[in-house]
Amino acid sequence: MSVTIAHLGPAGTYSEQAAYFYLHWLKTHHGVDSTLFAYPTIAKSLQAVTTEQTQIAVVPVENSIEGSVSMTMDSLWQLDSLRIKQALILPINHVLISCGNSLDEIETVFSHPQALAQCQQWLAKFVPNANLIPSSSTTEALERLPQIPKTAAISSQRAAQLYNLPIIASEINDYPENCTRFWVVSQASQVDNLFTPTHTSLAFSTSANVPGALVKALEVFAHLGINLSRIESRPTKRSLGEYLFFLDIEAPFNSPLMTSALAELTSCTEVLKMLGSYSVLTVKNGLT
Amino acid sequence: MSVTIAHLGPAGTYSEQAAYFYLHWLKTHHGVDSTLFAYPTIAKSLQAVTTEQTQIAVVPVENSIEGSVSMTMDSLWQLDSLRIKQALILPINHVLISCGNSLDEIETVFSHPQALAQCQQWLAKFVPNANLIPSSSTTEALERLPQIPKTAAISSQRAAQLYNLPIIASEINDYPENCTRFWVVSQASQVDNLFTPTHTSLAFSTSANVPGALVKALEVFAHLGINLSRIESRPTKRSLGEYLFFLDIEAPFNSPLMTSALAELTSCTEVLKMLGSYSVLTVKNGLT
Repeated sequence: MSVTIAHLGPAGTYSEQAAYFYLHWLKTHHGVDSTLFAYPTIAKSLQAVTTEQTQIAVVPVENSIEGSVSMTMDSLWQLDSLRIKQALILPINHVLISCGNSLDEIETVFSHPQALAQCQQWLAKFVPNANLIPSSSTTEALERLPQIPKTAAISSQRAAQLYNLPIIASEINDYPENCTRFWVVSQASQVDNLFTPTHTSLAFSTSANVPGALVKALEVFAHLGINLSRIESRPTKRSLGEYLFFLDIEAPFNSPLMTSALAELTSCTEVLKMLGSYSVLTVKNGLT
Repeated sequence: MSVTIAHLGPAGTYSEQAAYFYLHWLKTHHGVDSTLFAYPTIAKSLQAVTTEQTQIAVVPVENSIEGSVSMTMDSLWQLDSLRIKQALILPINHVLISCGNSLDEIETVFSHPQALAQCQQWLAKFVPNANLIPSSSTTEALERLPQIPKTAAISSQRAAQLYNLPIIASEINDYPENCTRFWVVSQASQVDNLFTPTHTSLAFSTSANVPGALVKALEVFAHLGINLSRIESRPTKRSLGEYLFFLDIEAPFNSPLMTSALAELTSCTEVLKMLGSYSVLTVKNGLT
């Protein structure tokens, strides 16, 4: 048996790092070989699963500093056939990469907007006059570094090794406790939980202009003593002020309490979508 | 009397458009002259007010398609001395700008990540093979267009006029109802509401690991019959799974019901911050 895994590319992004961890874990614990496939956006890595180009996608959900990844939430709402089968939590350690420049020579720093935001205090202190230029991933700008003088990029230690580029500063995150949560996603028909699920994620819309609709939905869980680990709103895209709500729930889908909760929830929501039930794997040390 | 207004620059961004609308409105309704000052980030336009470089900042809060603007929420939580004095809702109409290229010649499209996201279906249909390159604002890439062949940028009609560049496609938003809400912010000591406030915004943290803490806070408003128009979570940046909550409330700060609500809210939150009480101005037609 061999598994195909889609992720936001190119090689060296944190999404590839999470996908690589999952590949390694499948091999070690289940003797399963996997192959990684890089896609240019998060939406395209999820579409790869719906169109059966790959069996699995590993996508970022939430960072402890920068918050939710909108494209993941919006795509999962739209792509009905997908389910989360596993959550992964990885530590994020940013480094500054540059070719032949010392820190005081840097005039431009490239990176993904989330990585630039996660290092903003460090950048303001050590390269206060540098232009900060957003790129579409933490590795996209790396190939430009040797060509343009006085440039640097924020990326991972793994990317520096993969592309054979020098690190000129390490541990540059403003908050050392920086983690990102990823979801491993497959077709609903293909979910085979390797662990007993402990969490459930779902999303719902409420009828427009019903005051307190979210409160009613949250009370369902509060009254049953079920804890929620995240509540996130996203616009419906219909009009300003209408939202979808995403809940991460600390209970498996098939528990008696959740069965009660879902029956009650159906009566106070408009559209209710199950995103999946899964366990959480926490990685203590970064992969390098 | 003359007012200084900070906004995300350069000229031609939607933030500048909102600031320009407010300048025009101050002049027409109150005979007040204002001057606009462009800053490179949203955080720096808010800091301009705390450091008294300007009296006011106009910052984006929420787009009907792409959701909340994280940098605005995070900066307002950190900068205690600021208060919202007015909300503005502006329609957003994107156009595609290019120098001497027809649509089928375009190989690269630049824009702010939110604008690229808001036109993703149009782009997939009309320039399916183009590389989409993020820039730090909707106007930042415009100066590069004449220098690089086969490029285009998504920006506003106002930007095309300001920079004297040709529009090759109009109304390219995927959702025609696209609006952005802005907040006009000043020092707390300088708030002089020009209209009677109708809305209040506040933010709070809850003690870590208290199940149902958000539910309790929301129930305060539900029981008093006060409607909430937005509930948004942001990470505390301490550890994954700890959040701040931002509420937009459809009641003025100084109403008897809000006084009751705030007294109850104090008992079920950890840190509670008032962001401001204000009225909402809706602009029906874009400024060009």
